[in-house]
Amino acid sequence: MKILVINGPNLNFLGKREDDHYGLMSLPEIESLVRNEFPEIDFNFYQSNIEGEIISRIQDADRLFDGLLINPGGYAHTSVAIHDALALTKIPKVEVHLSNLAQREDFRQRSLTARNCNGYVSGLKEISYLAGIFSLIQIIKSR
Amino acid sequence: MKILVINGPNLNFLGKREDDHYGLMSLPEIESLVRNEFPEIDFNFYQSNIEGEIISRIQDADRLFDGLLINPGGYAHTSVAIHDALALTKIPKVEVHLSNLAQREDFRQRSLTARNCNGYVSGLKEISYLAGIFSLIQIIKSR
Amino acid sequence: MKILVINGPNLNFLGKREDDHYGLMSLPEIESLVRNEFPEIDFNFYQSNIEGEIISRIQDADRLFDGLLINPGGYAHTSVAIHDALALTKIPKVEVHLSNLAQREDFRQRSLTARNCNGYVSGLKEISYLAGIFSLIQIIKSR
Amino acid sequence: MKILVINGPNLNFLGKREDDHYGLMSLPEIESLVRNEFPEIDFNFYQSNIEGEIISRIQDADRLFDGLLINPGGYAHTSVAIHDALALTKIPKVEVHLSNLAQREDFRQRSLTARNCNGYVSGLKEISYLAGIFSLIQIIKSR
Amino acid sequence: MKILVINGPNLNFLGKREDDHYGLMSLPEIESLVRNEFPEIDFNFYQSNIEGEIISRIQDADRLFDGLLINPGGYAHTSVAIHDALALTKIPKVEVHLSNLAQREDFRQRSLTARNCNGYVSGLKEISYLAGIFSLIQIIKSR
Amino acid sequence: MKILVINGPNLNFLGKREDDHYGLMSLPEIESLVRNEFPEIDFNFYQSNIEGEIISRIQDADRLFDGLLINPGGYAHTSVAIHDALALTKIPKVEVHLSNLAQREDFRQRSLTARNCNGYVSGLKEISYLAGIFSLIQIIKSR
Amino acid sequence: MKILVINGPNLNFLGKREDDHYGLMSLPEIESLVRNEFPEIDFNFYQSNIEGEIISRIQDADRLFDGLLINPGGYAHTSVAIHDALALTKIPKVEVHLSNLAQREDFRQRSLTARNCNGYVSGLKEISYLAGIFSLIQIIKSR
Amino acid sequence: MKILVINGPNLNFLGKREDDHYGLMSLPEIESLVRNEFPEIDFNFYQSNIEGEIISRIQDADRLFDGLLINPGGYAHTSVAIHDALALTKIPKVEVHLSNLAQREDFRQRSLTARNCNGYVSGLKEISYLAGIFSLIQIIKSR
Amino acid sequence: MKILVINGPNLNFLGKREDDHYGLMSLPEIESLVRNEFPEIDFNFYQSNIEGEIISRIQDADRLFDGLLINPGGYAHTSVAIHDALALTKIPKVEVHLSNLAQREDFRQRSLTARNCNGYVSGLKEISYLAGIFSLIQIIKSR
Amino acid sequence: MKILVINGPNLNFLGKREDDHYGLMSLPEIESLVRNEFPEIDFNFYQSNIEGEIISRIQDADRLFDGLLINPGGYAHTSVAIHDALALTKIPKVEVHLSNLAQREDFRQRSLTARNCNGYVSGLKEISYLAGIFSLIQIIKSR
Amino acid sequence: MKILVINGPNLNFLGKREDDHYGLMSLPEIESLVRNEFPEIDFNFYQSNIEGEIISRIQDADRLFDGLLINPGGYAHTSVAIHDALALTKIPKVEVHLSNLAQREDFRQRSLTARNCNGYVSGLKEISYLAGIFSLIQIIKSR
Amino acid sequence: MKILVINGPNLNFLGKREDDHYGLMSLPEIESLVRNEFPEIDFNFYQSNIEGEIISRIQDADRLFDGLLINPGGYAHTSVAIHDALALTKIPKVEVHLSNLAQREDFRQRSLTARNCNGYVSGLKEISYLAGIFSLIQIIKSR
Repeated sequence: MKILVINGPNLNFLGKREDDHYGLMSLPEIESLVRNEFPEIDFNFYQSNIEGEIISRIQDADRLFDGLLINPGGYAHTSVAIHDALALTKIPKVEVHLSNLAQREDFRQRSLTARNCNGYVSGLKEISYLAGIFSLIQIIKSR
Repeated sequence: MKILVINGPNLNFLGKREDDHYGLMSLPEIESLVRNEFPEIDFNFYQSNIEGEIISRIQDADRLFDGLLINPGGYAHTSVAIHDALALTKIPKVEVHLSNLAQREDFRQRSLTARNCNGYVSGLKEISYLAGIFSLIQIIKSR
Repeated sequence: MKILVINGPNLNFLGKREDDHYGLMSLPEIESLVRNEFPEIDFNFYQSNIEGEIISRIQDADRLFDGLLINPGGYAHTSVAIHDALALTKIPKVEVHLSNLAQREDFRQRSLTARNCNGYVSGLKEISYLAGIFSLIQIIKSR
Repeated sequence: MKILVINGPNLNFLGKREDDHYGLMSLPEIESLVRNEFPEIDFNFYQSNIEGEIISRIQDADRLFDGLLINPGGYAHTSVAIHDALALTKIPKVEVHLSNLAQREDFRQRSLTARNCNGYVSGLKEISYLAGIFSLIQIIKSR
Repeated sequence: MKILVINGPNLNFLGKREDDHYGLMSLPEIESLVRNEFPEIDFNFYQSNIEGEIISRIQDADRLFDGLLINPGGYAHTSVAIHDALALTKIPKVEVHLSNLAQREDFRQRSLTARNCNGYVSGLKEISYLAGIFSLIQIIKSR
Repeated sequence: MKILVINGPNLNFLGKREDDHYGLMSLPEIESLVRNEFPEIDFNFYQSNIEGEIISRIQDADRLFDGLLINPGGYAHTSVAIHDALALTKIPKVEVHLSNLAQREDFRQRSLTARNCNGYVSGLKEISYLAGIFSLIQIIKSR
Repeated sequence: MKILVINGPNLNFLGKREDDHYGLMSLPEIESLVRNEFPEIDFNFYQSNIEGEIISRIQDADRLFDGLLINPGGYAHTSVAIHDALALTKIPKVEVHLSNLAQREDFRQRSLTARNCNGYVSGLKEISYLAGIFSLIQIIKSR
Repeated sequence: MKILVINGPNLNFLGKREDDHYGLMSLPEIESLVRNEFPEIDFNFYQSNIEGEIISRIQDADRLFDGLLINPGGYAHTSVAIHDALALTKIPKVEVHLSNLAQREDFRQRSLTARNCNGYVSGLKEISYLAGIFSLIQIIKSR
Repeated sequence: MKILVINGPNLNFLGKREDDHYGLMSLPEIESLVRNEFPEIDFNFYQSNIEGEIISRIQDADRLFDGLLINPGGYAHTSVAIHDALALTKIPKVEVHLSNLAQREDFRQRSLTARNCNGYVSGLKEISYLAGIFSLIQIIKSR
Repeated sequence: MKILVINGPNLNFLGKREDDHYGLMSLPEIESLVRNEFPEIDFNFYQSNIEGEIISRIQDADRLFDGLLINPGGYAHTSVAIHDALALTKIPKVEVHLSNLAQREDFRQRSLTARNCNGYVSGLKEISYLAGIFSLIQIIKSR
Repeated sequence: MKILVINGPNLNFLGKREDDHYGLMSLPEIESLVRNEFPEIDFNFYQSNIEGEIISRIQDADRLFDGLLINPGGYAHTSVAIHDALALTKIPKVEVHLSNLAQREDFRQRSLTARNCNGYVSGLKEISYLAGIFSLIQIIKSR
Repeated sequence: MKILVINGPNLNFLGKREDDHYGLMSLPEIESLVRNEFPEIDFNFYQSNIEGEIISRIQDADRLFDGLLINPGGYAHTSVAIHDALALTKIPKVEVHLSNLAQREDFRQRSLTARNCNGYVSGLKEISYLAGIFSLIQIIKSR
């Protein structure tokens, strides 16, 4: 089972300092945590700060992977284009956020991109990734 | 480890007929699924249609359980009172929704109650419960 | 033909004093009026101030009655949970309001619950009940 | 007892094809249905696509009829001028809509014109007309 | 002079831990404070988490008490039904809030229920109750 | 104990004629009422129609008085500058309004200035002043 | 000097009964009042309930008259088309309203059509017509 | 191939003077331009300032023409009734605007009527008509 | 007949340079124009930039003058306090604006203060003053 | 005549599966269709998912091409930066959309980028491109 | 070169205590800082809490000074009258704020008065004054 | 002292033609101006049209520079992702805009990115850069 994990803008900058919202782990540490928890899965971790590159990877995912986990970062709230790319991609998709969006600024209250995923997980810091992968595997298996 | 699972209004009516949003399972079937997946946990499943009774159970949870999973159903979007009860309860709390709120009516776009949970899971049908419990256990263990 | 008539909060308090919006009749007087006008129907009149109890009665109606008349009172404008209960109930449903909602406060301009009824009648005081029952009978007969 | 029935724009086009919102009947069929159900009433059926002509007929109704049933169609949501004409007319008035406005587009959620009627009926397809006339007769009799 | 004091959801949970908004006192402590300050008044303290039960008590108050003090908690901002119950009750009514609503979340900025009270007191923690009772007595005496 | 009572615009015009919102008393009559009720307090009553003069008096209060009662009148809803002056003043502050703001125009629903007071009292006509002073004394004593 | 006076919907119905907003005069009475006050002017009074006819008369005014007085009635708030016709007409134009729009419903707070007049007069009942003509004459003379 | 071209309010007034938004051509000049560019088509040009007459012509188009080009002018933004007439008409429909609506007033930003056309062209002055007819022919041919 | 003319902020600065909105006349020139046009009236012209001083003058007007003409300038849109002062003043009041508010910024679209005048005149530059006085005299005479 | 055709995000993914909104053609098929229909034009087709690259190409167009056709995809609704690039580019520009924006989600109702084009075509699927090019040629020729 | 520095409400109260938003300096300290940094400029420092006095000083500035630096404090967000005074003043004007408005309450997000200045500086505490003067000198020199 | 100057989309296109909002200088000319004014500073000028590249440079700035000046261009109003990158960067940051945002379109009224800078300067054309650098140096020195 092959799963693509797309990480959006600023996630490469994670864990550089303590943060109430995002937790203490860096992205490589989250990747290790995920790989350890689900050793049977063939993961591909990807990070980009560029909206258009993320779109291109989502398009590729449709024919190369069994499932897509995406943390679109700040693009979740503004990117109609990522929203549209997800709509055209038919494999199972789960969105994750480290922080609890319901507790944050008004402009983070609504995720455009989550509309075109099966579901989403928010607020559990690094555990959001684990719960997202856990769910994605269940969805892929149940198809 | 003792976990209280609170189910809000209309969840007792689940699975009576096919539904695009909520899936096919009844609440007892979801309960069995959860107990089978996590046999080591001591679960207490509770359902009520009455807002005030849900509030009373949340208050009790604070001293009787290690964690709280709540599916507040329609009260998620309207109940300042459940929101306040959750704020006063200090054990780990995860909110779950069967349907993907981001795909639904405007009045379901924002969950008041999720603001006072650690995080929330939405849109994965019965898998939302599994992912919610999975996350809750991780949070309790990591405290 | 069996019809359940659900009356929401404060309708038990009706007719205690003159009121421009709601008319002069008490709820028992409206019940008599309805029974006299439609003697061939087997009516069950129910009133509750508690949102969750109204939800439970709506759920029951689905298997016990041929049609449902509901005056949700103030819950019409706030209760996502009653809205959801009506969505899951498949018998013919008509909503009635004694007062003309179009003439009242902003927060009464939109009825959430009417979205999940076949239709609604508003503003005709006790005649709203008669017109609602009249319509419900026609819908049930035409199925 | 003389009742004027005013039908607004596009109602002359009704029933040309199946429609989920408006039902299957043409306006002449609705007229027959109404006349059959209430043979004792002297009805005058009128239809116009022109806002100003509808206003003129409402003004006439005040001295020529005992009651007014109006289906303002799309003008219900936009016409301050029809709203004002109804305000100046003192006979009993009931507004009807074939479709359930609460289930439709945002711009149909509020009826300006219903503010100046005694009440309104919505969503019961051709039965809306019957329930409207039924109510109007009761109001006229009770004056 | 008989005064009913209604306390809404979560007020039974008060004082369990320090809180910037609500102060340090539990509800029984507030009750003692009030009884000590106004020993000449016959008080009836009531608390419920259930909206419909609060409505029923408001209805009773109309014939059994000389005045009503209500802290509707979270229901102040959402309950059209409590708002309506207060409108139908004619004895003097004062609403109190422990916290200063003007300093809190957007959804607490407007109290629906205060519209149907004589006035309201907000933000003075347990002193809000004292000031509310003080005012209520003055109003009752001046009638 | 020294308390400054600041009265905003138009309060010097009070009581000139009957008024549903504000009561029958003139400002000097309210002053007498307050002095009689609390003879042990050293009051300073001040009224101005000019926003900037009110700001200057608030600034003075910080070093000259033990507490501040303010009825900002219409400035409550528009004056960021009075709001800011109150924020910089650290003695106990209570805002009062004669009328029940919750029953009035939309532009009176939110008090900017109350955000920077300990609390506020609204709707009890001249009793608002008494309840406000009563509360202010309790706060000053409990410091 | 030739002035066209256009009267919109329902103004032919004026004065049939007392009205707080519009005054007691019928349209012919207002016409007499205007003709008496300004006997030197060649007036053309026109009334229509039909939006499109009003547009056609505005178009004509451009080449046949020296000035235009318009009371667009309810169309002031909804008619982009009359707004556009006025924009294309270059003679002096003054809008009048019998009632004080600032005191009325939200949907009357803004006049679309007044944007394309030189100015407007509102709230002075029949005097609005006199003041409007008075102003129009001054503008025409000063060109 | 027969195409009906409906022109709404004020288009008969076009070209009377220079205009940045609408271009220099009069409606007859636009008609000539269109006929010259597409000599093989049987055109019927119609203009009316009256909303209801436009509705009647749209209704007729359904059985008499192969396609409909409509420039609803100001009614595009306000007419629920024309919107409804277009919904009931099943031949290909293209909406055109001379001016670029995206550059104009807020109230012109959304076209209600375009929702019930196949598509729309805006901002190209008289070329909008040519592009609209060009498109309509392509759609009719491809059916 | 004594009329007070109150001019708000910046009107003392009028006519210093050409202005599309306000015309070319200075305030003393407007005063002369008014006095010449209505020589029989005893005028008192007043100007202040200070909101509170304007309030005090409005209060005085009630007992010293037969009518009040007010150009509140920018305070028209922001001053709840002037709005309240006008409400308490019972002589005839007419508001005037030099510029056409309907053509200006959003924050000038609504005049708070006009709600408490008999009516208002806008957009006719110095003629607004003449039309305002003309109307005020008519109102005073007709009382 | 040289025309640049810029295609925004996800248009490279077009036609992979049937779609109600966008039609059946892939982007290369649309390119062929356009080249066949207008063989005399020297076209340059460009596609990018990256907002900044699209901006750079728009800047280049100003000196290298006679006209610009742009389908900004999802960036039409969110990109102030593309909006600004178009403002600085002075050759004729036409925007096209395959789908009818007026029929889609709220966040697609307004195109920021169309404000800085001569005009736009929406809803005609691949014919939108043909009509856009058709128009662009006419505009270039008429300069 | 003569520069007037106008300081609005509460700035005389600055520096009395530590403040995250405004910094530690009192207004006289800021004045010293500015005079030391720009010894070649002839400064006039002015502070008032009264909106109308600030307006009068702005009017004077037009003929007495070469440039105007203004910190309107809370009036920046509410004063249409100061906005209008600035519009009528033609010397270079720069607005400064000590705090970063973008980080503060909603009602401080938009500065009305900055619209009629050349530009504005916000958030740099006392450095805002230095940067504002620095800029003003550059603008005056470059005229 | 090393300062990074980041210039967002379209700033490479500056000065190509006269512009009321942005001034006459090209970006290289602004760079020369800045270097001449502050010869003691080690500047790094960077420009990109691509949001993600700007994010990457902001991330780098944190360890390589003493301060950051950013003109985010159109991304200031839309980019949650740049906003987040700035939040994670701890060196002093000042935002500059050539044009006066307070005078421009609604969608430019609020800068998301300025929330995470120390402060911002707007409207002074090329002087905005000078004032921004001037301020940044002061902040760095005062740390």
